[in-house]
Amino acid sequence: MAKNEILDTYEQLKKATKAGFLSAGTADLLSELFERSAAFVQACDREKLTSKVEGKSYFRFTSGDKTSRAVNTALYSDAPLPWKKALAALDSALLPEDVQARITRQVYSAVISFCSAIDLLKSGDQKTPGTVFEYAIGFLISKQLDCEPQQTMPIMNADIGTLKLPTDLVFNLGEGKPRYHVPVKTSSRERSIMFWAHQRLLDGVYGLERYQGLPVLLAETKCSKSGVVTEICLPDQWKVYQTYIAKLRSIQYLDVPKALENLGETYPHVIVRPLGALLATISSGTDC
Amino acid sequence: MAKNEILDTYEQLKKATKAGFLSAGTADLLSELFERSAAFVQACDREKLTSKVEGKSYFRFTSGDKTSRAVNTALYSDAPLPWKKALAALDSALLPEDVQARITRQVYSAVISFCSAIDLLKSGDQKTPGTVFEYAIGFLISKQLDCEPQQTMPIMNADIGTLKLPTDLVFNLGEGKPRYHVPVKTSSRERSIMFWAHQRLLDGVYGLERYQGLPVLLAETKCSKSGVVTEICLPDQWKVYQTYIAKLRSIQYLDVPKALENLGETYPHVIVRPLGALLATISSGTDC
Repeated sequence: MAKNEILDTYEQLKKATKAGFLSAGTADLLSELFERSAAFVQACDREKLTSKVEGKSYFRFTSGDKTSRAVNTALYSDAPLPWKKALAALDSALLPEDVQARITRQVYSAVISFCSAIDLLKSGDQKTPGTVFEYAIGFLISKQLDCEPQQTMPIMNADIGTLKLPTDLVFNLGEGKPRYHVPVKTSSRERSIMFWAHQRLLDGVYGLERYQGLPVLLAETKCSKSGVVTEICLPDQWKVYQTYIAKLRSIQYLDVPKALENLGETYPHVIVRPLGALLATISSGTDC
Repeated sequence: MAKNEILDTYEQLKKATKAGFLSAGTADLLSELFERSAAFVQACDREKLTSKVEGKSYFRFTSGDKTSRAVNTALYSDAPLPWKKALAALDSALLPEDVQARITRQVYSAVISFCSAIDLLKSGDQKTPGTVFEYAIGFLISKQLDCEPQQTMPIMNADIGTLKLPTDLVFNLGEGKPRYHVPVKTSSRERSIMFWAHQRLLDGVYGLERYQGLPVLLAETKCSKSGVVTEICLPDQWKVYQTYIAKLRSIQYLDVPKALENLGETYPHVIVRPLGALLATISSGTDC
């Protein structure tokens, strides 16, 4: 029953996003989806996990013989309606650091509840959590910028002609204003080089950093069957990509990986930060 | 029984490749693996598929309720020991066009037999076919060049230090001689931009086209459950990548996709050709 409610809401949400992230339907259905998911996982048992990540602890939800992905204990909150709270905070013009941190936690709690619900209700479905994560982030950034993203980019070239290239979320605020390129993924895995490759492509077509590259990720945790949590990160490779392929402005996480958190301090400055920090910067309408 | 023989040979091959593609063990075990696979699929039933690809026809092997991937009828040959024949042809110094075409067919027959056997013997295993495809191509190119590939690249940079970056097959023939960068994949799917991104990285670290980018792919066919074969290709996106990210020398297929075969004729000249053509060029030891 919970399963049908959650999946029905998801199907309605998919349709609503076709009218745009800023449509009334999208906001309400995201809220409904996250509330239903939170209610579902809160009724499940929890199992403490063995964390190999310094300074972080994790648990997972269980239902019968199924287990969810790892959930960061400090970031997760059971508070009712965390999603609506996050939205209310966004409405204020200024986002001081404590509010940024609260938004990150609240968005994390909402998203990880839905991902965990899908882990428990379906088998091996990575696509649905990824799609909803993109909807949630697309919605938040669209709301902050009051601008719908494009999902294709026009490329004009004498030899190729005019081509619409499918892409990640791209926000174009108008002539002379900042433009943002926002790939959204639940984790980077072995494909992180694609963030830099897409940035390089935009640099080539539109000019260096005309589009500011701002990937948003959920986490890099991996949980073994026996319940051991690790973070899979490739900081050295990221430095090589940032040096030789293209320059990304910053990379935002809901659960910032330990091995990446200080990567921005030295050259080539791959800035890794929580989502709340991005939402605060773009709300001011300037360069990120 | 056939299953155990094929999987046992595969396990032995995995170990043998650790001593290098040019080790006696690798050559013999590849041959044994392909012979066993050919014998297995030749005993299976075949089902004609509905091809939506102009000028090409496909079938698939079936076993009980399982079906293999699509097999190109014109490229596939039941001839005994096609793999050893392909090797014998490679030994001749010159590779005229008819020999190139025969090598492409023979390598295709060997590889597609193994991939089809795995499709029928296991469920949803994409990794094993991909690994064996890389072994087969790695072996053939190593043999032509008489050179083992590196599988990590040293990167030296004042800020990053010395780093060994894991990579695709990279052939370094020595000072002043050509160097080749050979990613090997059974299909490109939505990840083809990675070929250009890796080339861009090598261009940045070692100089423009110091490494010649030469990806090798099996096919781009997709077969529906009901037996309809299509080819998934993105020629316009490839042109954009070749214009704005980096320049790949050529892309070789065993089953060259229809929509890509003439892509090299006009700017930006993404040259797409059969594997045999690559083996002929590199055997002459010059630029590809």
